[in-house]
Amino acid sequence: MSAVRTPDGANALLEEPGRGPVSAQSRIPTSLFAAFQAVRRQTDALVEGLSAEDCLLQSMPDASPVKWHLAHTTWFFETFVLERAVPGYRSVDPAYRQLFNSYYVGVGERHPRPERGMLSRPSLDEVLAYRRRIEQQVGAVLHRPDLSPDMAALVELGLHHEQQHQELILTDLKHHFSRNPVAPVYRPRTPTPHGSRPPLQHVAFDGGLTEIGHSDKSFCFDNELPSHRVWLEPYSLASRLVTNAEYLEFIDDGGYARPELWLSDGWDARERGEWLAPLYWQPPEQPTSPWQVFTLHGRCTVDPDEPVCHVSYYEAEAYARWAGARLPTEAEWETAARSLAPHTPCGALLEDGCFHPRPAVRSGSAGLAQMFGDVWEWTQSAYLPYPGFRPAEGAVGEYNGKFMINQMVLRGGSCATPISHLRSSYRNFFPPQARWQFSGIRLVLS
Amino acid sequence: MSAVRTPDGANALLEEPGRGPVSAQSRIPTSLFAAFQAVRRQTDALVEGLSAEDCLLQSMPDASPVKWHLAHTTWFFETFVLERAVPGYRSVDPAYRQLFNSYYVGVGERHPRPERGMLSRPSLDEVLAYRRRIEQQVGAVLHRPDLSPDMAALVELGLHHEQQHQELILTDLKHHFSRNPVAPVYRPRTPTPHGSRPPLQHVAFDGGLTEIGHSDKSFCFDNELPSHRVWLEPYSLASRLVTNAEYLEFIDDGGYARPELWLSDGWDARERGEWLAPLYWQPPEQPTSPWQVFTLHGRCTVDPDEPVCHVSYYEAEAYARWAGARLPTEAEWETAARSLAPHTPCGALLEDGCFHPRPAVRSGSAGLAQMFGDVWEWTQSAYLPYPGFRPAEGAVGEYNGKFMINQMVLRGGSCATPISHLRSSYRNFFPPQARWQFSGIRLVLS
Amino acid sequence: MSAVRTPDGANALLEEPGRGPVSAQSRIPTSLFAAFQAVRRQTDALVEGLSAEDCLLQSMPDASPVKWHLAHTTWFFETFVLERAVPGYRSVDPAYRQLFNSYYVGVGERHPRPERGMLSRPSLDEVLAYRRRIEQQVGAVLHRPDLSPDMAALVELGLHHEQQHQELILTDLKHHFSRNPVAPVYRPRTPTPHGSRPPLQHVAFDGGLTEIGHSDKSFCFDNELPSHRVWLEPYSLASRLVTNAEYLEFIDDGGYARPELWLSDGWDARERGEWLAPLYWQPPEQPTSPWQVFTLHGRCTVDPDEPVCHVSYYEAEAYARWAGARLPTEAEWETAARSLAPHTPCGALLEDGCFHPRPAVRSGSAGLAQMFGDVWEWTQSAYLPYPGFRPAEGAVGEYNGKFMINQMVLRGGSCATPISHLRSSYRNFFPPQARWQFSGIRLVLS
Amino acid sequence: MSAVRTPDGANALLEEPGRGPVSAQSRIPTSLFAAFQAVRRQTDALVEGLSAEDCLLQSMPDASPVKWHLAHTTWFFETFVLERAVPGYRSVDPAYRQLFNSYYVGVGERHPRPERGMLSRPSLDEVLAYRRRIEQQVGAVLHRPDLSPDMAALVELGLHHEQQHQELILTDLKHHFSRNPVAPVYRPRTPTPHGSRPPLQHVAFDGGLTEIGHSDKSFCFDNELPSHRVWLEPYSLASRLVTNAEYLEFIDDGGYARPELWLSDGWDARERGEWLAPLYWQPPEQPTSPWQVFTLHGRCTVDPDEPVCHVSYYEAEAYARWAGARLPTEAEWETAARSLAPHTPCGALLEDGCFHPRPAVRSGSAGLAQMFGDVWEWTQSAYLPYPGFRPAEGAVGEYNGKFMINQMVLRGGSCATPISHLRSSYRNFFPPQARWQFSGIRLVLS
Repeated sequence: MSAVRTPDGANALLEEPGRGPVSAQSRIPTSLFAAFQAVRRQTDALVEGLSAEDCLLQSMPDASPVKWHLAHTTWFFETFVLERAVPGYRSVDPAYRQLFNSYYVGVGERHPRPERGMLSRPSLDEVLAYRRRIEQQVGAVLHRPDLSPDMAALVELGLHHEQQHQELILTDLKHHFSRNPVAPVYRPRTPTPHGSRPPLQHVAFDGGLTEIGHSDKSFCFDNELPSHRVWLEPYSLASRLVTNAEYLEFIDDGGYARPELWLSDGWDARERGEWLAPLYWQPPEQPTSPWQVFTLHGRCTVDPDEPVCHVSYYEAEAYARWAGARLPTEAEWETAARSLAPHTPCGALLEDGCFHPRPAVRSGSAGLAQMFGDVWEWTQSAYLPYPGFRPAEGAVGEYNGKFMINQMVLRGGSCATPISHLRSSYRNFFPPQARWQFSGIRLVLS
Repeated sequence: MSAVRTPDGANALLEEPGRGPVSAQSRIPTSLFAAFQAVRRQTDALVEGLSAEDCLLQSMPDASPVKWHLAHTTWFFETFVLERAVPGYRSVDPAYRQLFNSYYVGVGERHPRPERGMLSRPSLDEVLAYRRRIEQQVGAVLHRPDLSPDMAALVELGLHHEQQHQELILTDLKHHFSRNPVAPVYRPRTPTPHGSRPPLQHVAFDGGLTEIGHSDKSFCFDNELPSHRVWLEPYSLASRLVTNAEYLEFIDDGGYARPELWLSDGWDARERGEWLAPLYWQPPEQPTSPWQVFTLHGRCTVDPDEPVCHVSYYEAEAYARWAGARLPTEAEWETAARSLAPHTPCGALLEDGCFHPRPAVRSGSAGLAQMFGDVWEWTQSAYLPYPGFRPAEGAVGEYNGKFMINQMVLRGGSCATPISHLRSSYRNFFPPQARWQFSGIRLVLS
Repeated sequence: MSAVRTPDGANALLEEPGRGPVSAQSRIPTSLFAAFQAVRRQTDALVEGLSAEDCLLQSMPDASPVKWHLAHTTWFFETFVLERAVPGYRSVDPAYRQLFNSYYVGVGERHPRPERGMLSRPSLDEVLAYRRRIEQQVGAVLHRPDLSPDMAALVELGLHHEQQHQELILTDLKHHFSRNPVAPVYRPRTPTPHGSRPPLQHVAFDGGLTEIGHSDKSFCFDNELPSHRVWLEPYSLASRLVTNAEYLEFIDDGGYARPELWLSDGWDARERGEWLAPLYWQPPEQPTSPWQVFTLHGRCTVDPDEPVCHVSYYEAEAYARWAGARLPTEAEWETAARSLAPHTPCGALLEDGCFHPRPAVRSGSAGLAQMFGDVWEWTQSAYLPYPGFRPAEGAVGEYNGKFMINQMVLRGGSCATPISHLRSSYRNFFPPQARWQFSGIRLVLS
Repeated sequence: MSAVRTPDGANALLEEPGRGPVSAQSRIPTSLFAAFQAVRRQTDALVEGLSAEDCLLQSMPDASPVKWHLAHTTWFFETFVLERAVPGYRSVDPAYRQLFNSYYVGVGERHPRPERGMLSRPSLDEVLAYRRRIEQQVGAVLHRPDLSPDMAALVELGLHHEQQHQELILTDLKHHFSRNPVAPVYRPRTPTPHGSRPPLQHVAFDGGLTEIGHSDKSFCFDNELPSHRVWLEPYSLASRLVTNAEYLEFIDDGGYARPELWLSDGWDARERGEWLAPLYWQPPEQPTSPWQVFTLHGRCTVDPDEPVCHVSYYEAEAYARWAGARLPTEAEWETAARSLAPHTPCGALLEDGCFHPRPAVRSGSAGLAQMFGDVWEWTQSAYLPYPGFRPAEGAVGEYNGKFMINQMVLRGGSCATPISHLRSSYRNFFPPQARWQFSGIRLVLS
């Protein structure tokens, strides 16, 4: 793991190492092609060692088969790049247009989401061949001397889109595997760095009129725009994430049995789902033995120093109430993230290859640890349009805006997020009951 | 109807006519007793003419029987006032503690909400007798020379609580009655005031650093606190509500058949509910005949000049997108409402006795009509805690805070809201799919 | 209670006391009018003491409000008698045709069954007035000199139909009331006759070629026809019903925790419904205290000598397996019932006014007790057409035949069945999971 | 296709070709081993050409993955044969005991049925290796000189069990594949034999006291016992199955739009499932073009001469009513089947390799065609125990008896049934709404 990173300093996806950001114009086509190659190879690397059967699993409508992710990210390039860039383009297979469309109404019919696990045909091999063929053609487009900025922008969007699916490949696979009593191992465990655990502190911020949202010319999603002013009252942000040890105190104090700690809808979700702990936890067989947890390394003992993970917003919010604190707003979080010095250490990211959050090691600049990586941090902010928000034009505009209801914003990325995918203004979002993402808790005091 | 009102100038519930607000201390006990009498009589008036059978109906878990509302608002006084204020208090019937508890976990077990319609016993007569008996005892408490401010505050809270249930008595009854093919009439229709309809205009606001939330010493709910600063960009608010005629254009333009106009969850709700128009609308039998609508006056023809009503947030949001506009945030709405001059005319409120929204007549101060009354206005704001929010202490604190998820804020009150219940800072909230409240649409342009 | 009865000797509904059966022709019109009056008055007597609110309750789609039963049985006479017998007949209220149609597709639209509890209008008083008015007109028809045998047969069908609803009024009301935590009392308890309990014996039958089904000219439902031959192997029928004491042994032996005792679907139903005992039973608060049970007399202690009641087919079948026996087929039951001497004593029937099954007193002829009355006896026979079955012509033919799937036959009547409604060939039927009828168990050995 | 067969003459599974049945004793061990090999190879042949992905599909809880069938039929031999026959037997993998147990409560926990599609591990290759290993060990047991008759009987039961799963492999796979818009082809179509279609005739049977059930010493399931007497009225059985052409008349006559033709539960199922035709049928795109149907050969045009297939009991029963006939009872069917001469031609069976029912060619003895093969024939008989039925001892007794509720009997086998699996007394059973089996219609007249 490279200990020093700057997820926010630049659009790392297109950044040339050691040089810093360059203008979008100058990077095309050479570095865009390199980025395209890099992202596609990273996806390939994730599915190494998985069988065709593994890649077909679908454990719930929210979680898609790995094979579907492989095809859908390719469909994106075929539909939004090749169909526009290549005159008279003939699709690899007309059926794919429907089979691998996720939710783009503007593109046409979609195969129903809960049925994605029913597609034994095309086979994994056929999907991999589809990937290769589209890659070849997109590569050709990227080498065209007259590549338009619009087309380049669509390719770049496709790469960020694929990175999102890299994370989903991991979180979905974890959910699929968790339903198998034999507890399959995706990757063997890597040793956890040990050392002194930094004590929990609170870092004070003054508030006042601040600005959030993406503000330079590098890539961002439409939902990060426009950059706009927000008034903040003073607040103090926890220096690190809540740990399993801390969360176990909440459990042991009856946290899952006291409705007064929960939002009303949260308590209903807890009862309906019979939640007694975070997702994937299994209670100790003996009162004195430790909790077990299913991970991408198979079944393990819960490590008290790791950040708690796979909690819903409801659990995060209840924990915060129990702890006498609250969750940050996204503006508070982003303001703090912007204050980080360059080269502040991150928590685990996708490239670290550990596929599991790790204990905080030491605080970075401003006394804040784990602001990026390890687990997504639930905020108290509903996922809503920023003032002046406009969705992107055309079918690609169905990307973010139409989900702006019933979801909460998460910030900071996780151990399944590629480094070049992150930035301070990045807004992730999930419904408050979702637990299968790598989602955890950072507290704040008013 | 008194044409001139000031829902925001004072806490009208305790206001002495013609005199303006007085301090909370000085009003107790005399005016609080008068307010108590007035609110309770207003509830009685609402159920006049309803049979015991009518009062038992429960058409869905969200809508309670009228009899239950009568009992629950009384239970509130028994539980939170008499049990504390009267040493050795003996309950009217121990079973009521559970039967008529809505959701106060701190008070104990609750009869399940979907089963409220199963309570033929106690009878309506017994519940009315219960009301009388508790009223007598609360009256005695209010006349005590040593009435504590805390106890007075609980009574006042109970009165505002009962006013909320006055509105629910009407909206729930409308839903119950709508399920009966004979289309029962609650009250005969009163003539609609006619005159020139004010054209739709937009009133510009500058934005900047503004303050919202309740800020004087009069009553408010905990969710209106604390008053706090918010930064607003400039905006232009529509001078009146969207009318049925305007909404019919949306319908006729395929509004209910075009997923690209809707939030993703909204489209799902539309499909699941097979929505083709606002709740209670029935399509014309002949293409040339008008839409019908079920109202508290029975079945009527849709009046094109009335504000559209019984739309969900999803429909309001889709309409706004179709119209090239958006819904206001609650801060934008409140800032506009605060700008109204005293004695600005309102739309229909409960006391007008029309139980149905009415066409806008003429604009009031600042060119804004219908800011209060007629229909609740969906805002684009999720219902979340204000910065520094603290729920009230004890079981009464289970009032607002625990519902702060998956709901959107509505502002301004409706034809079913008592005048003294409203103010600029009042936050109503419902899930985005809810349609059985008197809820409508006001647009804004950025 | 009149201790001696002959449910099978004649069509008691039209029988003149002390004289024995007379031919159907000679009875019309005088005794048919008397029967009409008697049945209608018996219905009236059942609802005495119930409030309009009680009569509106609907606790589940399967159980209708009492008011609906009152209206539907009247609708039957209006639709099938008056509309045919009275030229130019004008309905009391056109809306009733739809509101009070149960399932007769041939008659037109039907108000949805689960929504019957939504009909606060027409009121109970209006429904009672409707009853009076239709009775008057049917009375006039019955006094016509030219009353056709067909019309008389429809009236007679209507009376047996109303008797079925008399039983449903009681079983449905019991279910409605059971959902109210205050455990309403329908009728006070009458003292149980005490005496020596007859020991359980087995009465042997030879089997061979036998005949079942209705075989004389008196009234029967179409599903009892035609009388036909059946081959039976020898069997021994239990002399009385299974008691609560015996059923408690099954419970105490883990009957509700041992899937090997149950049909597969039965075990699923048990798990889904979380059954631990018959419907309406509540477990003892202390291990040493007795089980409680909700009855039409309110909440009581389970009487060990009473027949077990409110068990599903699944429970009856599991009990039989546990006991090393089985349930009888309907042909076995009917053959045994036909062997009873005239004036064999019955168990409790509707006219006894106890509304609850009673302990067996002494065996009757052939050593069999409780063959009629107390509780319906589940048989091992699926409810299917007899060889040569033909449904009645026209809409009244939608009575029985269309339910011949997924139901099991019950025989013998219960404490809620009118005496004149019963006969040896009578086939009642309910789905195997139904528990809200007065249904119990008689065993047989091969 | 071998044109002449005798499914009923003997237990063909163990029959030596050309010799006729031999006693069970003399056949063991040599022919039992041969039968074991033959059945296992037949299973292998069925999955040839399927990918590991195909074998993982699970389209509904009722239909299991092909891989699961492969493992479960092996688990049966491991659990019921090897664990008993081999002292100190060590299981291949302890996890399999739970993963591949279907519903044998006596054996222990079971992996939930709807989750069978979640088992990417063990892989198809591992399951095939599991098959080989168990086969080897069972083979060794079968060659033991001291092989007990009990153990031989368990192996024989295991073979008949595996044959049932051979049929399910095909019917389940067809359902899985039908959910894929690309309509995968399992096997290419084989030419249909053409020739004159035999006209529909009715073959009269006298009825009287007859005997049904299995009556010789060859293998049968417990539910076919004991052989017992039944009284039958005279009846006339249709000489062949109902064809697609005949069924299309029913559709064209509004069969799916006329509730009066249906059982009440059937109509509900039709509405809920939005049935407009048999399962797998797709309506013509143009009014004049033919219906399409999904088959194991992919998507085809409906052949008017083929027997109608994939209809539920509800559809079969409604069709019969519409046609003025009824379905046979199982006793009527079995009596007719027993009357067939040896070497009567069958319809298509598994060994024919067409995997689809075929048009009737010519009548066999007694004028009856297609009595065995092509499609299972719904009878009017509920699946219930025969008089004197006793389930087999031990866990294998959980085979048939515990499903004796809510199911109807089907007779005669289908194009997916192995020839040696069939006999006149064979009772298949499915719930009345099931449509994914090869199930069709033969009519009878009283």
